[in-house]
Amino acid sequence: MVSKGNLPAKTVERLSEYRRTLLDSLEEKRSYIFSHELAALLHITAVQVRRDLMLIGYSSVLKKGYDVQELINTIGEILDSDKGLNVAVIGIGNLGRAITSYFKGKRSKLNVIASFDNDPEKINKVISGVKCYPISDMGDVVKTLDVSIVILTVPPEEAAAVAEETIRYGVKGIMNFTTVPLNVPPGIFLEQYDMITSVEKLAYFVKESSSRLSG
Amino acid sequence: MVSKGNLPAKTVERLSEYRRTLLDSLEEKRSYIFSHELAALLHITAVQVRRDLMLIGYSSVLKKGYDVQELINTIGEILDSDKGLNVAVIGIGNLGRAITSYFKGKRSKLNVIASFDNDPEKINKVISGVKCYPISDMGDVVKTLDVSIVILTVPPEEAAAVAEETIRYGVKGIMNFTTVPLNVPPGIFLEQYDMITSVEKLAYFVKESSSRLSG
Repeated sequence: MVSKGNLPAKTVERLSEYRRTLLDSLEEKRSYIFSHELAALLHITAVQVRRDLMLIGYSSVLKKGYDVQELINTIGEILDSDKGLNVAVIGIGNLGRAITSYFKGKRSKLNVIASFDNDPEKINKVISGVKCYPISDMGDVVKTLDVSIVILTVPPEEAAAVAEETIRYGVKGIMNFTTVPLNVPPGIFLEQYDMITSVEKLAYFVKESSSRLSG
Repeated sequence: MVSKGNLPAKTVERLSEYRRTLLDSLEEKRSYIFSHELAALLHITAVQVRRDLMLIGYSSVLKKGYDVQELINTIGEILDSDKGLNVAVIGIGNLGRAITSYFKGKRSKLNVIASFDNDPEKINKVISGVKCYPISDMGDVVKTLDVSIVILTVPPEEAAAVAEETIRYGVKGIMNFTTVPLNVPPGIFLEQYDMITSVEKLAYFVKESSSRLSG
């Protein structure tokens, strides 16, 4: 069995998706679910589901399927940190608000506890349920509030400098939603996603397929 | 040489990123750029850049590097449709606005020309530069405005039904930003991205690394 700290990134992603799907099932008052049902909701195979759960040492399949609440708890033990992790959103425009609202709405172990912006209209206000601080106070606030993850939605030209600053203040994980790819030193975790590229890629394939049809 | 309609998805993604980086360089009044400079800005290798450009048949390397404007145009010929593609955003909350604003701000061949929502406060208003229509009018509007791509940012419980509806109205590409994975019939292109899973994955690796350090 793979140790719980050594799971492949793809398995971790799917565990997050399983939990979200299981939470939805729980809301619909379902207590048990079969691997093939969970798989169907996520458009993957039941074999994949069973393989992932085996990897985390979960094997209590009952005749009526998995116990939904128990599986949610098991996944939580793997994914979540006991005391939770503190998260700050840097750049509280539309995208920053969308992300903050999502996490504030859930009983999540990821606590979005601060946002940062340079806009005087936003500073010291509570936006999407979270207080906005000036970027110039980032060092103090990150240390005081023990922020270990930041979500970056600043303008592209500020992305690299802001990311470097957060790392200097002790941040360990950066989720980069700007359009600028970043580079981080060893020991710092980086995820980045560029929604513009995704949309442009989609447009390319739509265009090519329609030109094949008409050509 | 691979035909222009048959490029690997990863190459298409990088072409989109090259163009964005080249546009930034142009704004900084740079006329020429070397492959290693372009690569460094994107944290990839120069070999990768040259391989991708070879794949699209671009080989006009000068002693002073690539001609920035010429390369932008060449990439545009590959990625863009001549007359542009019309895009609608379904669900014009914070995330929908962030995406709309991005595309409205660029001289892009992707024309965000409509948004849809159920909120009476939004309907018939211009939001982020684009008129918002009621979701009940989607069929007519999609046909009249020749929308071929939709960007989905509706609440999760509405995602599947709305996606099916758009396909029935002739939409060919769906960018799914909801937390619900979708399935589409052959001939329809789907990209999906779940930002919650990305953040949870990042949190898992941050947690594991800090427990290794303290354990």
